[in-house]
Amino acid sequence: MTPKKILVAQGGGPTAVINQSLAGVVLEARKFAGVERVYGAHHGVRGIVDENLLDLTQETSHNLEMVANTPSSALGSTRDKPDAKYCHEIFKVLQAHEIGAFFYVGGNDSSDTVRIVADEAIKANYALRCVHIPKTIDNDLVGNDHTPGFPSAARFVAQAFAGANLDNASLPGIYVAVVMGRHAGFLTAASALGKKFPEDGPHLIYVPERVFDTEKFLADVKRIYERLGRCVVAVSEGVHDAAGAPIVTKLAEQVEHDAHGNIQLSGTGALADLLCEEIKNKLKIKRVRGDTFGYLQRSFIGCVSDVDQREAREVGEKAVQYAMWSGRNGSVSIKRTGFYSVDYELVPLETVAGKTRVMEDEFLSDCGTDVTDAFRLYLRPLLGSGMPDAYRLRPNHVAKVLHKA
Amino acid sequence: MTPKKILVAQGGGPTAVINQSLAGVVLEARKFAGVERVYGAHHGVRGIVDENLLDLTQETSHNLEMVANTPSSALGSTRDKPDAKYCHEIFKVLQAHEIGAFFYVGGNDSSDTVRIVADEAIKANYALRCVHIPKTIDNDLVGNDHTPGFPSAARFVAQAFAGANLDNASLPGIYVAVVMGRHAGFLTAASALGKKFPEDGPHLIYVPERVFDTEKFLADVKRIYERLGRCVVAVSEGVHDAAGAPIVTKLAEQVEHDAHGNIQLSGTGALADLLCEEIKNKLKIKRVRGDTFGYLQRSFIGCVSDVDQREAREVGEKAVQYAMWSGRNGSVSIKRTGFYSVDYELVPLETVAGKTRVMEDEFLSDCGTDVTDAFRLYLRPLLGSGMPDAYRLRPNHVAKVLHKA
Repeated sequence: MTPKKILVAQGGGPTAVINQSLAGVVLEARKFAGVERVYGAHHGVRGIVDENLLDLTQETSHNLEMVANTPSSALGSTRDKPDAKYCHEIFKVLQAHEIGAFFYVGGNDSSDTVRIVADEAIKANYALRCVHIPKTIDNDLVGNDHTPGFPSAARFVAQAFAGANLDNASLPGIYVAVVMGRHAGFLTAASALGKKFPEDGPHLIYVPERVFDTEKFLADVKRIYERLGRCVVAVSEGVHDAAGAPIVTKLAEQVEHDAHGNIQLSGTGALADLLCEEIKNKLKIKRVRGDTFGYLQRSFIGCVSDVDQREAREVGEKAVQYAMWSGRNGSVSIKRTGFYSVDYELVPLETVAGKTRVMEDEFLSDCGTDVTDAFRLYLRPLLGSGMPDAYRLRPNHVAKVLHKA
Repeated sequence: MTPKKILVAQGGGPTAVINQSLAGVVLEARKFAGVERVYGAHHGVRGIVDENLLDLTQETSHNLEMVANTPSSALGSTRDKPDAKYCHEIFKVLQAHEIGAFFYVGGNDSSDTVRIVADEAIKANYALRCVHIPKTIDNDLVGNDHTPGFPSAARFVAQAFAGANLDNASLPGIYVAVVMGRHAGFLTAASALGKKFPEDGPHLIYVPERVFDTEKFLADVKRIYERLGRCVVAVSEGVHDAAGAPIVTKLAEQVEHDAHGNIQLSGTGALADLLCEEIKNKLKIKRVRGDTFGYLQRSFIGCVSDVDQREAREVGEKAVQYAMWSGRNGSVSIKRTGFYSVDYELVPLETVAGKTRVMEDEFLSDCGTDVTDAFRLYLRPLLGSGMPDAYRLRPNHVAKVLHKA
């Protein structure tokens, strides 16, 4: 039986294409004759329990298309991670509004919420179709070749490093940029796609999948600097030591200790700044600069992968089709079927819920500071069309007149 | 007499379009029958004194066009600020290579170098035409409506804030982003062009042209937060107190004092982090995030204003034409002649050299935390075509069922 009313919500960190999935759900749902109302929850699950709902049936198709092309979550998002009690509240609201299908666009926490809500409905013998729609710039959902949002964020990171490398070549020194990713290094590794010529940066890439050793880091930087007179470094915010302690905490403690004080060096720029301080102090290099890409990675307007847009739209559409026709709950997942093409599957919620994917070993080089060609082949098609390209002058040197050798 | 050999160099911080000016010089110079060689100095004036020169006559027109579209200084840059002795060394190299025209793309320090080198040539009775070509993302050259490089950096900042505002609306809280600009607030003020709807951020803009008072800043943030439940802030890195002391130093000293230590909180993320700490501690707001846009503002590949590209190319071309036909040294300056069109003039080097323009009063609102419509009219055409636009859902609220008022 086709549900008369459906509800869609967006959770977790926004992405450049999460509204494509929203538009995919709404526009596809409207094509089904039995669907009378498409609701959207304001600020994710929080909006459901507060009954803060928008009627998206009254939205124009044109505006939905415009919103689809706008980054960040148009419905608003939330960081709430519902427990069983919270999920029961969600279910009660869905029931009160006679919602027949629930779609939640989000990461692995969101898929877990969908799983618990689905269980509540089964326990109450209430007909509710529950589908999780994947989204995360971290690319850390299991059961997916990749996740919507990641390709556009990866494109931003690759473009940022392509430019930062040119800047660093122009005014040589050390450049350290910290990239989002607490557990998975996919986004940091995307920096490698900003590289064109062999001596281009990033020269060193540090991801959470490998233990970070500050002494080795300094030796790596020194080696590159002695060879090239400069060094561009990409570091995941989640790098940690062998015991799992975040490097930002360790370095901050060291600074605290030196000062016999209790300073909290929290804040988003801290890791880049502390690594730069280490390089300045220990390697005695003068020009050392650090950046933290921060929220620009997921929110910058005007840097998006067309492949990502298309797929984010399709997972939304497919979610509705699965809800209407498959008779199963689940999570929409992306499978790669060619170079380059994808197809979608509805996988059990348990496959995805609450699990974290990290970078496969084959994607990381043995030296521990670079990616493999397998990763380059994996990522390149995701970045989409129209990637800007860097060119340089050819070295036709003029013979010296005054300073002859 | 047409110079047989000309030399071009790039100085100071790179921009997204500084290579357009380089291509403009090289391609235009090649059209003059008497010009036999076009040299480029590697890393600005440093490359001249070291005789580290490239023969750009051997470069293909096609590659020059590709390089023109690539950000950062393709010849390499330098932070050297030559004094009279250094300029004498420059002159000796130009003389040894029989250079008849010298072009330096740079900011006000670079124009001062061109001025001194020109004087050296006159003193030595050596025929040298010297032309400064404007460039700076800070937009702080006097005698120019605006400077090449600024529009593209402004476009980056506007797009970054358009996205950051959407992100902050989705997950509400305080967001503080620090923008480049030590003395002039033009680039920070460009954040206002990222705003579309009345309640969009940036809600507060702080530039170095106005004294920064931390207590007033906190009161401003509190006021916006109480009204909207969120607040997006743009701050120039150069904000300072009434005595001219940088705010980053003041806040860092305060932290040091609290810890009875001697910690140096230098590093690019420091100002954003310290302002966020102030907000957290004094206003007791939980979700406070800070970003520092850093080098992405001037180096990001793939975010450029086509108007900026065109003008940067033209100032390079015009520089050659002035050198060949005007019989005068000078600095190429941009004059606005319509809405929107520009023309170029060769102004005396003394007009520009070593001087700093700051934002005109008419561009800043009386409240001290916003720009005027005059500024919006000034900046909008510079950002170029194809600016991405943000859309949002219309608020068609669904009547509550469970929580009726």
